[in-house]
Amino acid sequence: MTTPDLDRVEVTLTTCRALLAMRDDASRLQLAAQLVQRLADLDETSTGRLLGRLEIDFGPSREHLEKALADVDLSVPASVQRLHRASTSARHRLFEAINVAPGGTEAIVQLRAVSLALDPNDHPATADDLETTLRSWFNRGFLTLERIGWQTPASVLEKLIEYEAVHEITSWADLRRRLDRDRRCFGFFHPSLPGEPVIFVQVALTRGMPDSIQTLLGSPAPQDGEIGADTATFYSISNCQVGLRGISFGSLLLKQVTEALRAELPQLSVFVTLSPLPGLRAWMDDHGLTPDPAELARHAARYLLEATRSDRPLDPVARFHLRNGARIERINIDGDTSPHGSAQSYGVMVNYRYDHATLVANHEAYTNSGTIAIGPEVEALI
Amino acid sequence: MTTPDLDRVEVTLTTCRALLAMRDDASRLQLAAQLVQRLADLDETSTGRLLGRLEIDFGPSREHLEKALADVDLSVPASVQRLHRASTSARHRLFEAINVAPGGTEAIVQLRAVSLALDPNDHPATADDLETTLRSWFNRGFLTLERIGWQTPASVLEKLIEYEAVHEITSWADLRRRLDRDRRCFGFFHPSLPGEPVIFVQVALTRGMPDSIQTLLGSPAPQDGEIGADTATFYSISNCQVGLRGISFGSLLLKQVTEALRAELPQLSVFVTLSPLPGLRAWMDDHGLTPDPAELARHAARYLLEATRSDRPLDPVARFHLRNGARIERINIDGDTSPHGSAQSYGVMVNYRYDHATLVANHEAYTNSGTIAIGPEVEALI
Amino acid sequence: MTTPDLDRVEVTLTTCRALLAMRDDASRLQLAAQLVQRLADLDETSTGRLLGRLEIDFGPSREHLEKALADVDLSVPASVQRLHRASTSARHRLFEAINVAPGGTEAIVQLRAVSLALDPNDHPATADDLETTLRSWFNRGFLTLERIGWQTPASVLEKLIEYEAVHEITSWADLRRRLDRDRRCFGFFHPSLPGEPVIFVQVALTRGMPDSIQTLLGSPAPQDGEIGADTATFYSISNCQVGLRGISFGSLLLKQVTEALRAELPQLSVFVTLSPLPGLRAWMDDHGLTPDPAELARHAARYLLEATRSDRPLDPVARFHLRNGARIERINIDGDTSPHGSAQSYGVMVNYRYDHATLVANHEAYTNSGTIAIGPEVEALI
Amino acid sequence: MTTPDLDRVEVTLTTCRALLAMRDDASRLQLAAQLVQRLADLDETSTGRLLGRLEIDFGPSREHLEKALADVDLSVPASVQRLHRASTSARHRLFEAINVAPGGTEAIVQLRAVSLALDPNDHPATADDLETTLRSWFNRGFLTLERIGWQTPASVLEKLIEYEAVHEITSWADLRRRLDRDRRCFGFFHPSLPGEPVIFVQVALTRGMPDSIQTLLGSPAPQDGEIGADTATFYSISNCQVGLRGISFGSLLLKQVTEALRAELPQLSVFVTLSPLPGLRAWMDDHGLTPDPAELARHAARYLLEATRSDRPLDPVARFHLRNGARIERINIDGDTSPHGSAQSYGVMVNYRYDHATLVANHEAYTNSGTIAIGPEVEALI
Repeated sequence: MTTPDLDRVEVTLTTCRALLAMRDDASRLQLAAQLVQRLADLDETSTGRLLGRLEIDFGPSREHLEKALADVDLSVPASVQRLHRASTSARHRLFEAINVAPGGTEAIVQLRAVSLALDPNDHPATADDLETTLRSWFNRGFLTLERIGWQTPASVLEKLIEYEAVHEITSWADLRRRLDRDRRCFGFFHPSLPGEPVIFVQVALTRGMPDSIQTLLGSPAPQDGEIGADTATFYSISNCQVGLRGISFGSLLLKQVTEALRAELPQLSVFVTLSPLPGLRAWMDDHGLTPDPAELARHAARYLLEATRSDRPLDPVARFHLRNGARIERINIDGDTSPHGSAQSYGVMVNYRYDHATLVANHEAYTNSGTIAIGPEVEALI
Repeated sequence: MTTPDLDRVEVTLTTCRALLAMRDDASRLQLAAQLVQRLADLDETSTGRLLGRLEIDFGPSREHLEKALADVDLSVPASVQRLHRASTSARHRLFEAINVAPGGTEAIVQLRAVSLALDPNDHPATADDLETTLRSWFNRGFLTLERIGWQTPASVLEKLIEYEAVHEITSWADLRRRLDRDRRCFGFFHPSLPGEPVIFVQVALTRGMPDSIQTLLGSPAPQDGEIGADTATFYSISNCQVGLRGISFGSLLLKQVTEALRAELPQLSVFVTLSPLPGLRAWMDDHGLTPDPAELARHAARYLLEATRSDRPLDPVARFHLRNGARIERINIDGDTSPHGSAQSYGVMVNYRYDHATLVANHEAYTNSGTIAIGPEVEALI
Repeated sequence: MTTPDLDRVEVTLTTCRALLAMRDDASRLQLAAQLVQRLADLDETSTGRLLGRLEIDFGPSREHLEKALADVDLSVPASVQRLHRASTSARHRLFEAINVAPGGTEAIVQLRAVSLALDPNDHPATADDLETTLRSWFNRGFLTLERIGWQTPASVLEKLIEYEAVHEITSWADLRRRLDRDRRCFGFFHPSLPGEPVIFVQVALTRGMPDSIQTLLGSPAPQDGEIGADTATFYSISNCQVGLRGISFGSLLLKQVTEALRAELPQLSVFVTLSPLPGLRAWMDDHGLTPDPAELARHAARYLLEATRSDRPLDPVARFHLRNGARIERINIDGDTSPHGSAQSYGVMVNYRYDHATLVANHEAYTNSGTIAIGPEVEALI
Repeated sequence: MTTPDLDRVEVTLTTCRALLAMRDDASRLQLAAQLVQRLADLDETSTGRLLGRLEIDFGPSREHLEKALADVDLSVPASVQRLHRASTSARHRLFEAINVAPGGTEAIVQLRAVSLALDPNDHPATADDLETTLRSWFNRGFLTLERIGWQTPASVLEKLIEYEAVHEITSWADLRRRLDRDRRCFGFFHPSLPGEPVIFVQVALTRGMPDSIQTLLGSPAPQDGEIGADTATFYSISNCQVGLRGISFGSLLLKQVTEALRAELPQLSVFVTLSPLPGLRAWMDDHGLTPDPAELARHAARYLLEATRSDRPLDPVARFHLRNGARIERINIDGDTSPHGSAQSYGVMVNYRYDHATLVANHEAYTNSGTIAIGPEVEALI
């Protein structure tokens, strides 16, 4: 941990105050641009210091707040609203003021990335303002769904290589394979972060449901591309912006990509994932279970159905797909034979199936009572 | 005034509640889309009724708020922030939820347009939430500056005809003249309102400062277009979205258009407006002054310099430009000989000059002490 | 007829010679740009004079040609090819050299427009070179099919108003109606004439086959736009560039628009035209036939089937559609009640039907033996 | 050499004949599309066979040609023109007919690539028709100059890697370096070959004139990118389409890129190349000269100035730049220390300078009398 550069932090805070005091729009824009630059010049430690100061010095006006509290009548909406305004922090206005400048949105996303990388509990009010602000700015209504392919600018494609979180893209040749005729890739983009995906998903179009990620990634594209495919497999979904953690886009992305694929390729009848089980090995080791090939699938099924936290599956990937209304369709031993796959789940992978007809019912059963939908193959296992 | 369609209002409110209760993102999107349609189907009276119900029924949770109030410790940022969250209304979350759907942004803009057309004081908390929400969404950082010309889609150009608020565009031929080689038009656009300008400004490029709007609008384009021009005159600036009233973009638009013109045409040395004096005639009539041509310019100067409200000029157009740092450069009798021009100001118009070198000083003198900057010609008048 | 400006013509010819003599690409480009300007500055009479000089002075080199003729051995391809090269005129190389400059393509199109407006027989070799050159440049492979709508730049839309040759577009409101949801418009464009349609066709989407142009143009768009339509009617097709006369694009445009509509709207089952009969009235008057309403349709049918020139129908519109393989589907009296419609055909219009299943057979029967395809309604008439 | 697939060749020739016989535009389009496919399916040997048949069977009609020859009066332009038309081969019409189909232009470019790869003298008339046709289609007026950067689609960028002819691009990282802020890349594109550069040039922006390709390619981008640069160095120019060999675009590309750079970066004052001397080593070896470092520059100067073919320098790169009007500015020993550089020129490279003020005079002196322009440094050498 380096020492914060206190001078820089102070200069930055002074600019923050000046920006909030300024009335003239043109001057505000100029000052906001300066501030964006100052924020970019702070290292992580100094930014942490700044966050601490924002917590203390940029809350709501105590005077206004006390006045609003003294007067408040909870049965009068206007009075409650006055309290709400009086409790709105200067931070909130500051973030809005910064956003006016080019690069302002990115600056706030970065600020939250640092806040999360350090400890948000060190500056909980600031962390809350950051999240609330970004949640509003990155409302799905402001995002655009875009297809990513080999026609996409290289400057965007290199972001895929950088951000791919599930199955590393090892080279431009590997990337090109993932954008071939029997593959699809889609991302959400925000107008203020041009060329920067917020999240993206990779899809394989195949005949039948794939049971192994190494086969799926390693096989050459069939000559007729997507023509014969009946199955779309979501095999990787990556959030790109650390500063947007917890502001979820994944469910909507899956839904809208499913719709886009249905429209483009009516012959697709099966929509599934090929997903890791990040916690399987740890759970098996805890329970003294061995990765006996004959028993591995059964262990995985038990892990998915029985290992819980707060009445929902322990496995975070399972929680995500089950809440979306998918069902556990198949368990694939030897699904991921890489060292990483072996380390997290003895190589087991799962297909979660997104079946249009049962999605809503599954979702409701799951959210209301924790019921986990399973397909016949998994049913047979247990 | 028609009777509100109470059934429709209730169905809409029920959808609002369902939307807030829903957890699944995909279902929320679907419900939000329904709600956008329902809102569009309400007439003004019914929407007014809805606004009243949002005021009462969609505030913050009283229970949470009481709890936060009981606990609050104003010296602890996290505690204050909890109060802030507890005081955030369900309306606010509702607007965010609606925005997820296509057309959602427009629906909220329209809701505020109706709120303003009726009486915002009938639902002050709702009106405040609407304004705060839209102010955040329409942050300048999310707007793009775009040049509008004869190459622009007709679907956008017809909006200019519809929205032009200052000097009516009488035909497509008139519009075309305003987009000719010696003219410029720029607007701010928002990604969620594609093809809909938020505000636009019309500029004439001329040799010398124009003194009459009818000459400016009526003269044919010179053969060499903008080549010989030394002056850019902002002769019309129109806000397009009633629902964004009070969320000002004008100052920034002028500033950025000035920069864009400077970059395109370095030979431009004078940036002025040709502006109306909307309150001159009423003020003169109140003071028993007659439109004697020999005295009219002097009356106008007195009106600008002496007629005040809260220590600032009475005239709203003067207030806008002076606050931006412009100075009163010239008073033009016979500036607008149309019936409208005559009715509002006995035909007088004003050039406000945006002089780069003095803009900031003028702005500060004006905002600090109300000092009004004037050019030598106006000085000579008084 | 004005007198040609001989000095200008000579200067232009000198530039032509210099351009052909120049070897350096960069200098050629500069000279070509000058020449484009000089050509634009010539009036029609002077251009006519220029065309005459191109005919005499810019043929092939007589010396080379005589040499090639002396040597020629018709059984040796290379020898024949040498003759071909030797017989290629300097004009041809000149047109290619001009095309290098911006605006060069347009300059040659304009040159042919003047050639056609005067008498091509005054300069037959030049006229032939112009046609051959433009036919190659405007090969269908170089044209793009583009949909034209209300989203299209106004600068392109005003060309529709200018070029519409069949049913005048009377205003921007009229134009907008023609681009409404139940209408389509498509054009061919050439990359070197940006924003300039080469040809465009207007289509109405209706329930049933329209029998009257005034009803079709005057009716408001149905609320559900194109949703209920089963019929696409090509009601106007306009060539835009006089200089491309005789280089036909109409058949391919109809074919490709039909395909585009089929892909967009699979519910369309009938593709027809609503076409004028330009020569009906003159023919009836020649034959002493009266426009008795009870007999008019029968007269029109006889005109179409019996009035011929070189064994094909006299009517040029009929010749175009029948050669394309369409059949005469219906004769509509009162199809065009405008003065123009009355003057050319006593108001009669015809639907030619493009029926996918019979198009090729019809085309072949027509081109081989002049057989005219007719539908049952017309059959019943005769 | 494989055996030609005679059946395929015959089927292709039959389709060619059918295409020329067809009158209906729609059917022609269909047939042309078939023919494009058939041509793509022929291997090189079979295509060679086809070219031979086109030579014999698809010339002009002997009957028409004899008739035109019998009649010809060389003093009558129309008569000469008739001879020209009669001598136009069926091949020429065939190429135009193929071009109507999607992929048609590319098919003809490929056909010429095979013709050049085999021996054009085996089918001289066909080779001549191919060249004439492509020269017309790829007229500079139909090409667009486009900047290529890291924002360019990856599908275009991979073409750079494929086509780079001078200094191999070894990886995507290498490519990215070449598109960094202190580099520029421009290409000519043709509308019928979308995403396919016809030619491209790579430029380095530096302080001072670079003397070594390995330094230029290996140095990291300066922090301030192109800001401090005063020199633009064209260090690689690659023709991409084998089928367009001999149809030169290089001179115009250099000229237009120079103009584009001048407009973007007025501070650039020196435009040079860093070019290889492909024939130096062979010439030195022939003359028994050794690569003694003290003498190498002098040998290179003698090679450039004295080694000639047809009164012009033997070195093809020198011929190209000198004809463009550049001068030999500097000779750099150790300019290219790669094995390839050593093998062709003992590592020597040359800067040719494009000096706006002397370009035209140099070009004329060179083309008229073979005078070679040299700068003072080279002058001092000799």
